[in-house]
Amino acid sequence: MDPLAGLRRAAGERAAAGLRRTLRPRTPDDDGLLDLASNDYLGLARDPRLIEAAVAAAREWGTGSTGSRLVTGSTRLHEALETALAELCGAERALVFSSGYLANLGAVAALGRGGLVVSDAGNHASIVDACRLARGRVVVAPRGDLEAMEKALAGRTEERALLVTDAVFSVDGDLADVAALAELARRYEALLVVDEAHALGVVGEHGRGAVHSIGLFRESHIVRTITLSKSLGSQGGAVLGAPEVIETLIDTGRSFIFDTGLAPACVGAALAAVDILHSQPELPVRTRARASELAAVVRELGLETREPAGAVVPVVLGAPETALAAAATCAEHGVRVGCFRPPSVPEGRSCLRLTARANLSSDDLAVIRHALTAVAEVKVRA
Amino acid sequence: MDPLAGLRRAAGERAAAGLRRTLRPRTPDDDGLLDLASNDYLGLARDPRLIEAAVAAAREWGTGSTGSRLVTGSTRLHEALETALAELCGAERALVFSSGYLANLGAVAALGRGGLVVSDAGNHASIVDACRLARGRVVVAPRGDLEAMEKALAGRTEERALLVTDAVFSVDGDLADVAALAELARRYEALLVVDEAHALGVVGEHGRGAVHSIGLFRESHIVRTITLSKSLGSQGGAVLGAPEVIETLIDTGRSFIFDTGLAPACVGAALAAVDILHSQPELPVRTRARASELAAVVRELGLETREPAGAVVPVVLGAPETALAAAATCAEHGVRVGCFRPPSVPEGRSCLRLTARANLSSDDLAVIRHALTAVAEVKVRA
Repeated sequence: MDPLAGLRRAAGERAAAGLRRTLRPRTPDDDGLLDLASNDYLGLARDPRLIEAAVAAAREWGTGSTGSRLVTGSTRLHEALETALAELCGAERALVFSSGYLANLGAVAALGRGGLVVSDAGNHASIVDACRLARGRVVVAPRGDLEAMEKALAGRTEERALLVTDAVFSVDGDLADVAALAELARRYEALLVVDEAHALGVVGEHGRGAVHSIGLFRESHIVRTITLSKSLGSQGGAVLGAPEVIETLIDTGRSFIFDTGLAPACVGAALAAVDILHSQPELPVRTRARASELAAVVRELGLETREPAGAVVPVVLGAPETALAAAATCAEHGVRVGCFRPPSVPEGRSCLRLTARANLSSDDLAVIRHALTAVAEVKVRA
Repeated sequence: MDPLAGLRRAAGERAAAGLRRTLRPRTPDDDGLLDLASNDYLGLARDPRLIEAAVAAAREWGTGSTGSRLVTGSTRLHEALETALAELCGAERALVFSSGYLANLGAVAALGRGGLVVSDAGNHASIVDACRLARGRVVVAPRGDLEAMEKALAGRTEERALLVTDAVFSVDGDLADVAALAELARRYEALLVVDEAHALGVVGEHGRGAVHSIGLFRESHIVRTITLSKSLGSQGGAVLGAPEVIETLIDTGRSFIFDTGLAPACVGAALAAVDILHSQPELPVRTRARASELAAVVRELGLETREPAGAVVPVVLGAPETALAAAATCAEHGVRVGCFRPPSVPEGRSCLRLTARANLSSDDLAVIRHALTAVAEVKVRA
């Protein structure tokens, strides 16, 4: 069959299921909408300090890193960022990747290579892909099911084992039981990989993340992955861990070795964001407070949500069409929200995803309440 | 076993095999070394026009794109870059990813999903990973072996089939027979994915790439992937193809949907580089001429190389230790070269990888000749 005809047929099936997606490029003023959809949790992506750091980095180092980190793509600026990230999170070492997606692929595939990988069903797509790339045996445990995870680890026949979880789940916004998972991994001599993408900058003092907040940052069997593109307002990702972990990734991490290093402007901006986390510890506190306020409004209007662990507040609506209609309603009321449908969420769990920001004002909250009131009406009519 | 002990043991094995790697962060003046290792083929990564475009983009749009391209991560600037890339390469549409690695993962995994994927053994690591993520049947054909590829396609039982190749192979620097591959794909109703990472900006008029240079840019069954981090001096990647292809990636490309959009500074820099390819068509011509001159010097010194199709000139040395010693010798003579060992190249094919740049001067070539003369002596002693 004509290969394009096959793609067209599949597109028709997605359309019938309400699963087509459209790119809607923003204008510089965000189309005049209030942003409740981005992952810019601390409101730093347009902070003049980050912008000037990016500008200085581009001027000093150029616009690209020009090669793999192992060839010409490592600069002193990358090194400084790695030192700063390790210090912020209380890790021994850090290794910067060009995206959080690639950090997860690199960490899980290289550290889990040929072994048993036990993964939470709620984990991010990049972890799901990473598990496949580890070329071992993958056991997907139901969301937060410690018993299933223990059973998988206890039945291990492989030399290596790795347990992997999101810290804050990306759409539901709740926190994994990292302490219990760390204990489980320790008991079964497995590595635990914790993806702090939605926790860094939001959870714990100075936004040092979930692992740090429960005092486990010195545990050498815990590996953390982070992103520079959410709270840190930039782009890129990193892996934090013991020297043995970082050296394994430098030698064998395919998405590290075979990828161009992160662009200097992004490195500079992330470094400035880490400085701000040190000097303005009130930012993560404010983000969490705004998230709780948002969740309270959602509940008050009779809509389904969860108590947020970080910045993410879901509004579960069910069918993809209802979620799309609700997102359109929010836009009509001047608020941009995320709209998540399968395959981003399970069938029947299409939702809005609201994200709190440290710099949301009480005026903003009034606008949001107005928009969510209209969403509650959409839900009733659905 | 203690999981870190396992990592330490594996590191010891790599050390014994000469396969440890070290990060050597550059200073702003590149440690005073002449760069013959980067992928900055047109010498644009420090071009003031790219730098000022990156600066303007960061100031107008912020330091990060703040979310998935499908949520808040698409801006008018991303759209402008997609239009410019499609126009440069004569493609119907383009879709920008945050790295070339992720563009390959997205394209091959989504377009090949559940089908037959026939991949050249010389393809880049990101394509190898992408084949695994397609969750279908993968046939790896020996390097450039059209017969083996045809046999695989003829024996297809799957509805979908996809043939995938690098245009210019990343270490050997030679060109795939894209015309023959396109004909093969057409005959067997398969898509052909061509990774133009090392061809864009170097091969063909205005650096429009290998597919364009043989007039096949209107073939709707050909999908191209490119990177913004080599000739274009920035970071990121893109997929070029028919509307059906791009829409499939927007709806189902996991590394597109679940990744943060490319940072505005990188988008701006790449856009400036595309403008330069239009206004300075002499740059790709110069890069190819410098590469031929490099290859002539290598051959003259009795070292093994290939006639370069683009900017990449390998110097095959055999054992990893010999390649490492040769790279150190080059550095002593003031030249930074790439050193490729397994798993980046097959066993016994460790090599130096020299890359030509449009802005290499004749003085530079004299320094390089001197360094390569010393390499020839290393090789003789090995």
